[in-house]
Amino acid sequence: MKTKLRTIVPALLLGLSSSAVFANITLEERTIPSPTGVSSEFAALLEDRSIPPLLPVPSTNDEWIALQAQFDIPGIEISKQAAQRLEVEYESQNFAGVDTFFVTPKRVAAEYADKWLVHIHGGAFVFGGGESALREAIWVANGLGAKVISIDYRQPPLHPFPAAIDDAVAVWKELTKTQSPESTAIFGTSAGGNLTLATTLKLQEMGLPTPGALFVGTPAVDLKETSDSWHTLKGLDPLGQREGLIQGAFNLYANGKPLDNPLVSPIYAEIESFPPTVFISGTRDLLLSDTVRMHRLLRSADVESELHIYDGQSHGDYTNGLIIDMPESKDALKELGAFFDKHIN
Amino acid sequence: MKTKLRTIVPALLLGLSSSAVFANITLEERTIPSPTGVSSEFAALLEDRSIPPLLPVPSTNDEWIALQAQFDIPGIEISKQAAQRLEVEYESQNFAGVDTFFVTPKRVAAEYADKWLVHIHGGAFVFGGGESALREAIWVANGLGAKVISIDYRQPPLHPFPAAIDDAVAVWKELTKTQSPESTAIFGTSAGGNLTLATTLKLQEMGLPTPGALFVGTPAVDLKETSDSWHTLKGLDPLGQREGLIQGAFNLYANGKPLDNPLVSPIYAEIESFPPTVFISGTRDLLLSDTVRMHRLLRSADVESELHIYDGQSHGDYTNGLIIDMPESKDALKELGAFFDKHIN
Repeated sequence: MKTKLRTIVPALLLGLSSSAVFANITLEERTIPSPTGVSSEFAALLEDRSIPPLLPVPSTNDEWIALQAQFDIPGIEISKQAAQRLEVEYESQNFAGVDTFFVTPKRVAAEYADKWLVHIHGGAFVFGGGESALREAIWVANGLGAKVISIDYRQPPLHPFPAAIDDAVAVWKELTKTQSPESTAIFGTSAGGNLTLATTLKLQEMGLPTPGALFVGTPAVDLKETSDSWHTLKGLDPLGQREGLIQGAFNLYANGKPLDNPLVSPIYAEIESFPPTVFISGTRDLLLSDTVRMHRLLRSADVESELHIYDGQSHGDYTNGLIIDMPESKDALKELGAFFDKHIN
Repeated sequence: MKTKLRTIVPALLLGLSSSAVFANITLEERTIPSPTGVSSEFAALLEDRSIPPLLPVPSTNDEWIALQAQFDIPGIEISKQAAQRLEVEYESQNFAGVDTFFVTPKRVAAEYADKWLVHIHGGAFVFGGGESALREAIWVANGLGAKVISIDYRQPPLHPFPAAIDDAVAVWKELTKTQSPESTAIFGTSAGGNLTLATTLKLQEMGLPTPGALFVGTPAVDLKETSDSWHTLKGLDPLGQREGLIQGAFNLYANGKPLDNPLVSPIYAEIESFPPTVFISGTRDLLLSDTVRMHRLLRSADVESELHIYDGQSHGDYTNGLIIDMPESKDALKELGAFFDKHIN
């Protein structure tokens, strides 16, 4: 009787009884219509969306470097177009010995006049460097009226873990000589979300002051295990799949270090205290599970942490405001602005 | 060029380029492993979980009534066992002319000594009545140490919309004669989440005081359109599917009223102000999209509203603490307790 009750309780909330086993679930072929709960702007974007072709995993450093260069070309083009469209300026700076971009919006809001936010870009740790790093920084600089230092951190294959974190820590130490840590935020999406969390964990480990707030967008927090939504939402996210190139990039970054090292995979951290953190993801995001798992880890330690999930959105879709006017993207900026106003402004 | 950029921006956050179209997405047959980010207790529960068989939609009132009686038998059994296991007592009361249960935990916490919380049960509006209504009320009463009035509202086929809302409003009016509304919460899951929202909208419409807080678990907020996760997560949730019996129950409840009436489908409400509301759902919940859409609607009106999503959980899984000790269920109660402490205690 006990087993039977276990099985049927959730179903019974809607009054259903049940049968047939559920451990490894085989889903039949099926067609998914477009989501109903999205703006017309995002619906239009979905209409010409596509899934990437599978690419072989590079086997040498030269192949990785060639692939980096190839991938970053359109990213650089987007950064340049977006900077023009959103009237954001940027210049490269060597700051604390690290390559960075100093990003300034046309109008700096009063609450951001005396500070720089810190941005750590995404790209599976391996991609998204150079000017392609700027995309999310431009989106936030324009959306909040904030000045942003975007870190063009060293990347694999030549500079694996922990080079990126070391670069971010160096920037942080230099910046907080002239700017109060508690009025500063670090933010990033995807691998940039991982590095935002890992940099903060590293600062704690070093006994250094931590940021007043974090924005962590759809972070890759578990490089060891493949969280559930990588499986359940496969085929619904233009990010593609974990197997192959992405896991290959994760392994290249980790460079033989244990994948459950909390600085590699922050979901394995023991959290006692942590800065207030806002998470954003979507219901079609392959990293939805990574996101909600990290949110729960922080909440279990009573960290002030918000979760915002957009219906029908895949990985990083909230940043589409970079290239089109999209209500959900404006809404995400409003949430970020409110969170930063509460904690750092 | 613009179209191409639109397509590749999200993928480029991880550095990928893309091809092939995306409007109606056909997913191939595939096998989904068990989720990694869950407790061993919940993982064990998933092992003997099952998907319900499809049942025909009743075509007469007598058939609906027979199905109600059939579905409610195991729910009543669960309520009785849970009340014993969790040491919760209940008695049926006619209160303000409405059938209710007064539910009291063995130990009433100090902050709940002078109040009753109000519970509205789930069950697709048609099922889950009688003592089966008590399940979530028992879970909350025990978990928070709170006294709960659980409303055994009138249901279709004999009493369609707006009978359930009228019953909840009657209970609310009577209760708030002796208890301050702002220190009282209403809560419910699934159809109960819908009715929690709809009752609050109705109170606003009537110019009556509203609750100090709401807990809205994985609510059915859109009876007209089928939100995305009903499609994307089909086969992963023992709730089954929207088509057939559930949509039939929704239609039976609406009884010919427009399905976009905000009291039928709260997602169509124009929100100006609303009580602080905490939402809970899971990444395998068919009503994940309904949940996040409603959260965003409230946030767009600057309502204080929290969202908590549990990895790997299907519809209403957080309430499994009713039948087993499960860390995620305890965690959900902790969030509820903290939210109520902040807003009503």
